[in-house]
Amino acid sequence: MSKVLSGMRPTGRLHLGHYFGALQNWVKFQSECECYYMSADWHALTTDYADTSAVDENTLEMVADWITAGIDPEKSVLFKQSGVFHHSELFLILSMITPLSWLHRCPTYKEQINEIKNRDLSNYGFLGYPILQSADILLYKADIVPVGEDQLSHLELAREIARRFNNFYGDILIEPKEKLTKAARVPGLDGRKMSKSYGNSILLGESDDILRDKVKNMFTDPLKIKKSSAGHPCSCVVFAFHEIFNREYKNREEKCKAGAIGCVSCKKQLMEILSEFMGPFTEKRKDLIADKAYLKKIVETGCRKAAETAHQTMEEIHKAMKF
Amino acid sequence: MSKVLSGMRPTGRLHLGHYFGALQNWVKFQSECECYYMSADWHALTTDYADTSAVDENTLEMVADWITAGIDPEKSVLFKQSGVFHHSELFLILSMITPLSWLHRCPTYKEQINEIKNRDLSNYGFLGYPILQSADILLYKADIVPVGEDQLSHLELAREIARRFNNFYGDILIEPKEKLTKAARVPGLDGRKMSKSYGNSILLGESDDILRDKVKNMFTDPLKIKKSSAGHPCSCVVFAFHEIFNREYKNREEKCKAGAIGCVSCKKQLMEILSEFMGPFTEKRKDLIADKAYLKKIVETGCRKAAETAHQTMEEIHKAMKF
Ligand code: SF4
Ligand code: SF4
Repeated sequence: MSKVLSGMRPTGRLHLGHYFGALQNWVKFQSECECYYMSADWHALTTDYADTSAVDENTLEMVADWITAGIDPEKSVLFKQSGVFHHSELFLILSMITPLSWLHRCPTYKEQINEIKNRDLSNYGFLGYPILQSADILLYKADIVPVGEDQLSHLELAREIARRFNNFYGDILIEPKEKLTKAARVPGLDGRKMSKSYGNSILLGESDDILRDKVKNMFTDPLKIKKSSAGHPCSCVVFAFHEIFNREYKNREEKCKAGAIGCVSCKKQLMEILSEFMGPFTEKRKDLIADKAYLKKIVETGCRKAAETAHQTMEEIHKAMKF
Repeated sequence: MSKVLSGMRPTGRLHLGHYFGALQNWVKFQSECECYYMSADWHALTTDYADTSAVDENTLEMVADWITAGIDPEKSVLFKQSGVFHHSELFLILSMITPLSWLHRCPTYKEQINEIKNRDLSNYGFLGYPILQSADILLYKADIVPVGEDQLSHLELAREIARRFNNFYGDILIEPKEKLTKAARVPGLDGRKMSKSYGNSILLGESDDILRDKVKNMFTDPLKIKKSSAGHPCSCVVFAFHEIFNREYKNREEKCKAGAIGCVSCKKQLMEILSEFMGPFTEKRKDLIADKAYLKKIVETGCRKAAETAHQTMEEIHKAMKF
């Protein structure tokens, strides 16, 4: 059976972007593969090192979101990186064989350095973050890693590191293959990418009250001033949501262009559809969040299971290196 | 009670340079401090990553040398770094808070890159080696670290990292103080520093036969052509050894200068003194090396003891970081 590894940083509650961009695929993998889903809490340190007080709480919130979205802790291993010490050990070993030049050439490195201006990211650990990511994958001999386009270079690095390791010490590590996630792109309320840092997201399990406010604030076509104006659905966030959630979006597209519907009613209908979609999530999430002990136990059990697999790989590595 | 941490890379048998430069001090610390003596096998990887087959065997040989030199496994904790996984975990954590600039400025980094030409050292782990060294020390809350002058900058880095950590997460780590080792400088057979890589060393537990050959090959004053020539003891390796091992070296100095003794008899007497000095070592070492199971057990016991202390520190760290 194929093995899948994927992870998310525990930075707060998940939103619809996570759901359509990753979680839906995670759910699908469960029936065909052995799945390891990881809260990347060490990774969170690469940027949030100065205040770590929320990281562990965020892991629980995130696991609640995963289960809400359909991840089954009986089928998949849900764990946190810091609970399986083998990640740090393999990180150390791979550090010894990874040329600095491979890291400097990572396109994401310079991007992030340029993007995140309010924190000092010129730390050693931040530069080595793709090595830690490689260790995460290689530790479980995961052969499938679901990634977005922007992460392809990191997966290529994981493969290169695996090859170099195998070249020195023998055929131990598995070169992982990417599974490109083809997902509906959910825009944020303002039309930019949905992201926590932009404050434009709709959370998984959002309450009706907040949902209503958010739909009210969604950007629409600025040229559609009144109901009878000809609208441009392609530049309207409300329409982008209809496209994802409403089967009859084609009909709506035509009516908008023809000036046969107005934005107020369009938003009202979206609100109904979203509320219906979100209802079960909100319910399920509320129950989960109320039982922190249960969530903790899931993470503990997951860490134990993950550590078993990780231990096997590390035993092979120690043997191959004669350590 | 003060805690001492020190370590050596397991690169092969130890020589008199190690004995006078470090081990004699290690022995002294045993009666006053809680001592942790470590085979730095992960560190050995920073340079010897391509072939690790001898590392574990070298650790046992080295531990035999330590015990030969008077380190008592009942008093001190003798362990190997790779046997206490907490080193890699603390390395990972400290990586996240250590600015790259602190590493680039380490004088030893550029030196080694320039010195060691036959291996590619431009790896990520090699750059981060002072962080691993800091983790080694801070993990045991060692307050005393015996170092040579050349290692002072690394210890300063360990202090800076400890301060930065404590600043973010609270007062957990101890800033270690250096204990400069004032030791008789033992020259190699050719007058350069005694070093395995120069092939000019006298090993601990060297047999009489080899000892005789080595003394025969020791450099003497080139101007002392025959017994009656006036010699210059200050430029004679044989004399440097007399200075260390022979109480009556002053007398010899005068006689050499006056042309009253010759190099052959001078070497003969040194051979006798060295042989007497080395005898007990050679005996003890032979017994130890014959019992690999005993050596393995010492290292295992040491790793267990070290892990207990390391575990305590890591518990405090996890709590402080709320992980
Ligand atoms: S009518 Fe609907 S699709 Fe058209 S601009 Fe208004 S909100 Fe958008
Ligand atoms: S007589 Fe002794 S001290 Fe003088 S040069 Fe010869 S070996 Fe050296």
